[in-house]
Amino acid sequence: MTIDSLPQHAPHPFFAVTDDQLMIDDRSIADIARQVGMTPFYVYARTHLRERVEQLRKVLPSEVHLHYAIKANPSPAVVQFLAPLVDGLDVASAREMQVALDAGMAADLISFAGPGKKPEELARAVAAGVTLNVESELELERLAQIARDGGGRARVAIRVNPSFELKTSGMKMGGGPKQFGIDAESVPQVLQRLRDMPLEFVGFHIFSGSQSLRAESIVEAQQKAVAQAIELARATPAPVQMLNIGGGFGIPYFPGEQPLDLAPIGRNLRELVATTRAQLPQAQLMLELGRYIVGEAGLYICRIVDRKVSRGQVFLITDGGLHHHLSASGNFGQVLRKNYPVVIANRVRGAQREVASVVGPLCTPLDLLADKVELARAEVGDLVAVLQSGAYGFTASPLAFLSHPPPGEVLV
Amino acid sequence: MTIDSLPQHAPHPFFAVTDDQLMIDDRSIADIARQVGMTPFYVYARTHLRERVEQLRKVLPSEVHLHYAIKANPSPAVVQFLAPLVDGLDVASAREMQVALDAGMAADLISFAGPGKKPEELARAVAAGVTLNVESELELERLAQIARDGGGRARVAIRVNPSFELKTSGMKMGGGPKQFGIDAESVPQVLQRLRDMPLEFVGFHIFSGSQSLRAESIVEAQQKAVAQAIELARATPAPVQMLNIGGGFGIPYFPGEQPLDLAPIGRNLRELVATTRAQLPQAQLMLELGRYIVGEAGLYICRIVDRKVSRGQVFLITDGGLHHHLSASGNFGQVLRKNYPVVIANRVRGAQREVASVVGPLCTPLDLLADKVELARAEVGDLVAVLQSGAYGFTASPLAFLSHPPPGEVLV
Repeated sequence: MTIDSLPQHAPHPFFAVTDDQLMIDDRSIADIARQVGMTPFYVYARTHLRERVEQLRKVLPSEVHLHYAIKANPSPAVVQFLAPLVDGLDVASAREMQVALDAGMAADLISFAGPGKKPEELARAVAAGVTLNVESELELERLAQIARDGGGRARVAIRVNPSFELKTSGMKMGGGPKQFGIDAESVPQVLQRLRDMPLEFVGFHIFSGSQSLRAESIVEAQQKAVAQAIELARATPAPVQMLNIGGGFGIPYFPGEQPLDLAPIGRNLRELVATTRAQLPQAQLMLELGRYIVGEAGLYICRIVDRKVSRGQVFLITDGGLHHHLSASGNFGQVLRKNYPVVIANRVRGAQREVASVVGPLCTPLDLLADKVELARAEVGDLVAVLQSGAYGFTASPLAFLSHPPPGEVLV
Repeated sequence: MTIDSLPQHAPHPFFAVTDDQLMIDDRSIADIARQVGMTPFYVYARTHLRERVEQLRKVLPSEVHLHYAIKANPSPAVVQFLAPLVDGLDVASAREMQVALDAGMAADLISFAGPGKKPEELARAVAAGVTLNVESELELERLAQIARDGGGRARVAIRVNPSFELKTSGMKMGGGPKQFGIDAESVPQVLQRLRDMPLEFVGFHIFSGSQSLRAESIVEAQQKAVAQAIELARATPAPVQMLNIGGGFGIPYFPGEQPLDLAPIGRNLRELVATTRAQLPQAQLMLELGRYIVGEAGLYICRIVDRKVSRGQVFLITDGGLHHHLSASGNFGQVLRKNYPVVIANRVRGAQREVASVVGPLCTPLDLLADKVELARAEVGDLVAVLQSGAYGFTASPLAFLSHPPPGEVLV
């Protein structure tokens, strides 16, 4: 393969290069590595987290609340930094709920979603006063029982498995048979039962998919979500106060992918704000974004431990790998493996270029961070940076695999 | 889909069913779950670990040493149980080395393999006196430097990237360009350099692949490995004392797969023992097996938290999922997702049967333990058992994903 024939990644929105060093603000990654005192590590950039939220605020109508779905990156430092910048937090487990509360977010601005919430998780959520996105009739019954047992009156939103899908998304989370939420067509009868339960109905959660890079697909899904909510609102026991229409905003990972165009989404949301105001006057529209907020603001940094040429192919063997960053290895929800964007952090362009594969220390051929990419010619001791690593990195990886130490995690 | 059209799994070699309860020895899984006091959990069976080793001893010639590669399951209880049953342990990190030493295995019966061993890992391994399977020239130089610095004289085996592959294997770990070992054709010159280094040469490690269910492929790979070692032995600075010809023995996971036939492997090894005795009289032949020893002796148990019918499809929503058992979800090295064998542990046959999908509590459609399988009709509170879960389960999973608690892990 010649260097010219290699596919290139979309330009990165955040990270700059100064004197051939990959930078966060005015600091080189090599400098940050000295501060961390170890490799590998994840580093998340405050500047870029803030920029991303500001970018969203600029394009989206101010009437739409912006929630951060902390499952994308539940690092307490990141959650604490983002909490005052967003309008609410979405959590997917009792532990995430505690991280959100620890970050100082008001309980009524926290939503707890997820199929299979255990009775003890439900009890904790009710005690905390967060909103429960209810995924089944059994969950409603369990919440009613908690109230009857004196555990408190739950704030409940019905999570709807919509009758449509988010087209061209990385993962479909609604439409067809799903484990998520209550099928739209069953919601009216569930709402009927809810009338007799000691629960506070607050609204709907309609999430149709994630990781879409097509604005028109997101626009269509948001239109359908609002229409579905208006339809279902005819059967609610109380006015809809919150309407979470999900997220689904993707970031470009792979060669050929282009960043999501927010402008049409902003324009469409302005119309949806007007529609909602007319049809559901008490409803607060909200978006739930995880990956889109943190994904591009984080890097995974590892160090080259060995450099090997095997049968003509260059391998840069690093102290990091799939045990720390499963997604970048291509083993998390990808059918065909593709490369995340990768650079040599301390010589981005380099004096010479070469095609190399970046691998980790594990005894498995799956431990591949980059397969035959063009990089600066690198030496032992150099730092490899995997971009687009702020979401679904640290916590989505098998950290105990082969019993290597976990990576560091820092916010700068 | 009708129940009749569903593919079936190969019969399980170990687990019995009594009174419709899945059993380990004379105990039901439900009983063991009460002992563990929580779900989900992994359970490994001493009886079945012992049976598997005995089965191997019966078929393989006694002259061949049997090593356990603890990366497959580094649970200290499992390693301690297996240590006296096998002839050595193979480790892939400094932490695994410590687990092996803690289990009482003699240091010279422990081998440490893995590309990208860090200098501090090498120093620890030399201090412990284990054998280092050396993966590159730089590693040799680092070991020589440790000796010169007074850190001790390393026992080294050269890990060879062979000139052949293990055919029909789940993962190819040799042949072509690889990050593993030193290319066979470069080994003579590396051995030449090694003569001048303060190191003790002990032999070769030739590992060509893993998870093969075809005896003839394994036979062929073992023949080629021995032939390659004999060829390379002409250039060694000292007689070959150990010859690790890898493992690669697979277990059936998916519908249509059949167990590996050990008999032809045993017959072939008898010939290889004779060849080795003639050509490399001081060499100890050894096999390195991980998954084959522990894979079928372990179960992952989770409890049904909710039962939902969405648009005609039954979902059993459990407290376990991909965060605990990534491989069973199909997200670890599989291109096309297939189902691990799954049963309802407390009603294996059941009064009624149905087609259901078993999912976990995570907010992602990837969180799928079984996709439309035929099971006993199950209720909330029932226990789901995922078979073939003794290897690459607990440690190969993203335990922190969505911040749910980790599973238990017990040996019974």
